Amino acid sequence: MLTYGRLLVKDMTDCQGVAEGASTPMELYERLSAQGGKVRSLKSAKAEKAEVDAAVQLLLMLKMDYKQMTGQDYKAGCPPSDNVGAPNNGPAADGAGEEDTVDPWNVSTTNANGVDYDKLIVRFGSSKIDKELVDRIERVCGQKPHRFLRRGVFFSHRDMHQVLDAYEKHKSFYLYTGRGPSSEAMHVGHLIPFIFTKWLQDMFDIPLVIQLTDDEKYLWKDLTVEECHRFAIENTKDIIACGFDLNKTFIFSDLDYMGASPEFYRNVVKIQKHVTFNQVKGIFGFTDSDCIGKISFPAIQAAPSFSNSFPHIFGSRKDIQCLIPCAIDQDPYFRMTRDVAPRIGYPKPALLHSTFFPALQGAQTKMSASDANSSIFLTDTPKQIKNKINKHAFSGGKDTVEEHRKYGGNADVDVSFMYLTFFLEDDEQLEKIRQDYTSGALLTGELKKILIETLQPMIAQHQERRKQVTDEIVKQFMTPRPLNFKL
Amino acid sequence: MLTYGRLLVKDMTDCQGVAEGASTPMELYERLSAQGGKVRSLKSAKAEKAEVDAAVQLLLMLKMDYKQMTGQDYKAGCPPSDNVGAPNNGPAADGAGEEDTVDPWNVSTTNANGVDYDKLIVRFGSSKIDKELVDRIERVCGQKPHRFLRRGVFFSHRDMHQVLDAYEKHKSFYLYTGRGPSSEAMHVGHLIPFIFTKWLQDMFDIPLVIQLTDDEKYLWKDLTVEECHRFAIENTKDIIACGFDLNKTFIFSDLDYMGASPEFYRNVVKIQKHVTFNQVKGIFGFTDSDCIGKISFPAIQAAPSFSNSFPHIFGSRKDIQCLIPCAIDQDPYFRMTRDVAPRIGYPKPALLHSTFFPALQGAQTKMSASDANSSIFLTDTPKQIKNKINKHAFSGGKDTVEEHRKYGGNADVDVSFMYLTFFLEDDEQLEKIRQDYTSGALLTGELKKILIETLQPMIAQHQERRKQVTDEIVKQFMTPRPLNFKL
Repeated sequence: MLTYGRLLVKDMTDCQGVAEGASTPMELYERLSAQGGKVRSLKSAKAEKAEVDAAVQLLLMLKMDYKQMTGQDYKAGCPPSDNVGAPNNGPAADGAGEEDTVDPWNVSTTNANGVDYDKLIVRFGSSKIDKELVDRIERVCGQKPHRFLRRGVFFSHRDMHQVLDAYEKHKSFYLYTGRGPSSEAMHVGHLIPFIFTKWLQDMFDIPLVIQLTDDEKYLWKDLTVEECHRFAIENTKDIIACGFDLNKTFIFSDLDYMGASPEFYRNVVKIQKHVTFNQVKGIFGFTDSDCIGKISFPAIQAAPSFSNSFPHIFGSRKDIQCLIPCAIDQDPYFRMTRDVAPRIGYPKPALLHSTFFPALQGAQTKMSASDANSSIFLTDTPKQIKNKINKHAFSGGKDTVEEHRKYGGNADVDVSFMYLTFFLEDDEQLEKIRQDYTSGALLTGELKKILIETLQPMIAQHQERRKQVTDEIVKQFMTPRPLNFKL
Repeated sequence: MLTYGRLLVKDMTDCQGVAEGASTPMELYERLSAQGGKVRSLKSAKAEKAEVDAAVQLLLMLKMDYKQMTGQDYKAGCPPSDNVGAPNNGPAADGAGEEDTVDPWNVSTTNANGVDYDKLIVRFGSSKIDKELVDRIERVCGQKPHRFLRRGVFFSHRDMHQVLDAYEKHKSFYLYTGRGPSSEAMHVGHLIPFIFTKWLQDMFDIPLVIQLTDDEKYLWKDLTVEECHRFAIENTKDIIACGFDLNKTFIFSDLDYMGASPEFYRNVVKIQKHVTFNQVKGIFGFTDSDCIGKISFPAIQAAPSFSNSFPHIFGSRKDIQCLIPCAIDQDPYFRMTRDVAPRIGYPKPALLHSTFFPALQGAQTKMSASDANSSIFLTDTPKQIKNKINKHAFSGGKDTVEEHRKYGGNADVDVSFMYLTFFLEDDEQLEKIRQDYTSGALLTGELKKILIETLQPMIAQHQERRKQVTDEIVKQFMTPRPLNFKL
């Protein structure tokens, strides 16, 4: 699992003209090829993030120019012509190739309005979570759907109707989600999948497995095995603080569980036998310079999708359907998993996909846990929360109070308002805030104050719950053991 | 580990002229490229062995013609020129590129006299086990060197002097060997590394770990996980029957132990982080069509080379040197391991390499456990042993008794004599047999009788010992536990 909440949305409107000097499509194509190579080599050399970002930025701009000049999307290996176009079954290898790039390591878009999620549904071949599905979940659960469903935070799915069909016939399922523990610090965005997964667990009364991919973080980052494992334990405390039921939840670190379950490893090997390098190259954009650990890792994220990976929970049953709530950038792993599943005799996991969590600086920059000013951490004090929001939260308001009162603010790009859509439960209150802000009745400072007063107690309560998570409780959650449920 | 005893030595003298019609080096080069591609695609499509062998055969012949025409070795991707020649750091990717090909999956040669082991030492960059080293081992052990050392069956090493230096300073080491359990049946050739490893264990009084790569066999063969694991258990019985000391020996199946030791998995991941696809492509000849399990497997064969992979034996100590007795075709795994070791803070394993075990039909064909007539199995009856040797063992004798008496036989190509060099302990008796056979005093039938009378009791005794290996004893050997030794 990768850090939740990646969003890189670049406003391209001021950046035209980078292709100056390229007078023919072929010249531009060659410049693009070279830039694509540069991005790849920077990535594989683990260059500074800023340097990689800049190179990606230039690549995206060249692509826009190319599209403008040729009317075609740039595709690596396909020089400009009239009949370009092999089917694109996933994100391109160099982190570009469509307007939006969404894979486990890159989320970027050339669209100033952010990632186009409807387009993503078409490209990934998933299904939209429409009103009919939300209504059906409401009927099955007998409760009001979670605000993340009501507001389209979880916007896409695979096979959710099939899960509900079976559930209505008293055939149960289990939940699987996860996190890549790349640092001790988690920010509010990281909570989204866990908040929603807890809701699903409560609604359906089913077992849940949570994977901490500390092995992945070791493979991808400049960290030691011990550091990654420690981050997994620290992150587990924050996850437990979300309120999961000990009797129904198994949390595991890959570094621990791989060495504690022959059944898990058997599934990893089965998956690894049925996926070629060509396939992971196509899906994840791996290159020959990538280490063999990265290349084989996708099988480890896939394995928890199969119930017999957890014999202490499910015995030898391999037929129990898995439902995976996750951010849409994780979908490539599970497209691969769903492709492999029938070939090794297992049911395909179903999925619920969420959007990305916007950074404080707005949809134009990407939230990064390594930049203390871009995120609100779960460890922040009330004062830090207040200062960060007041100082950094991108505003959709006008420059002066007079203008704002006259023309109103733009809630669609206002980060404080976006955050409220994630965390303010009351639909009517949220709608009133939108109307008041749009009309100009509500000032930016006032809007920020509402957000501050929403987040401060929420995070304080999280911190209070986390304090109560002792090492003993962590150990209990992380011990392979039977769970309490009926299937 | 792969089946021990692969030998494919083709006599090329009758096969000249396959390049007929190719009048220029470039034409021949192109034909070679195409044939190389054919071999690769047959292999990746898991074509019939016979078909692959035929394609490899043609490839080798084309290479000989190419060498004859251009005076250069064919290298894929390098068209004929005067300045060909990137350094060749290992076996070529397509299973050819030198006269002899020796990698974990292919052993073949264009040389009618068999693999040139001296050349192999130069190419692999290992060291010859010379008289000085054999004498030194004798001094250190205080016993006569094993016949495999006296007769050059173990002919090559890496860092053995360093192991002995440390041992003389009372710094001990441990042994690691293994087997790829591709079938229930083991033949006499499979015993070679185990017979020698037992001798080393007895001489140095040190712990030993034996890896059964059932995961590898699952990845490479058309077998289920369950079959491979069952073969691992069955093969373990034959290994135990070699007489290993329960107090000093840990035998493990990858499918079991990977899921039983977080420390083992941590070492696997550490190795996987430090080896790229480019590297395994170069070392093992993997292609983009290979499954990601194969690509990452070498790390699993590497991990037992590091002592902290076995905390139940060595605690957290990572500084204990490992000595690996194995057939030379396994060296690529350990070249990789030795390259990685210092980068992850571990000592490089030392190695002792053995030659290949010849097939019944002689050095011109490869021993294959799937051909009942090519091997003597550990399950064969005295009658089967007698019949196979009399019927199939390639003879260096003359066509008629009269000619044989007059001109004598050729012990160097006689399989019965070769087998005696492996299994007949008495040096003087062996030398007398050689002289009598060479002079013509000893007839082929008589030589075969000596071999039959050597193998029959040897195999009967093995079968007797194997019968005594109960499931309980297997379980004891395969349980992670402390071993009894001083370091």
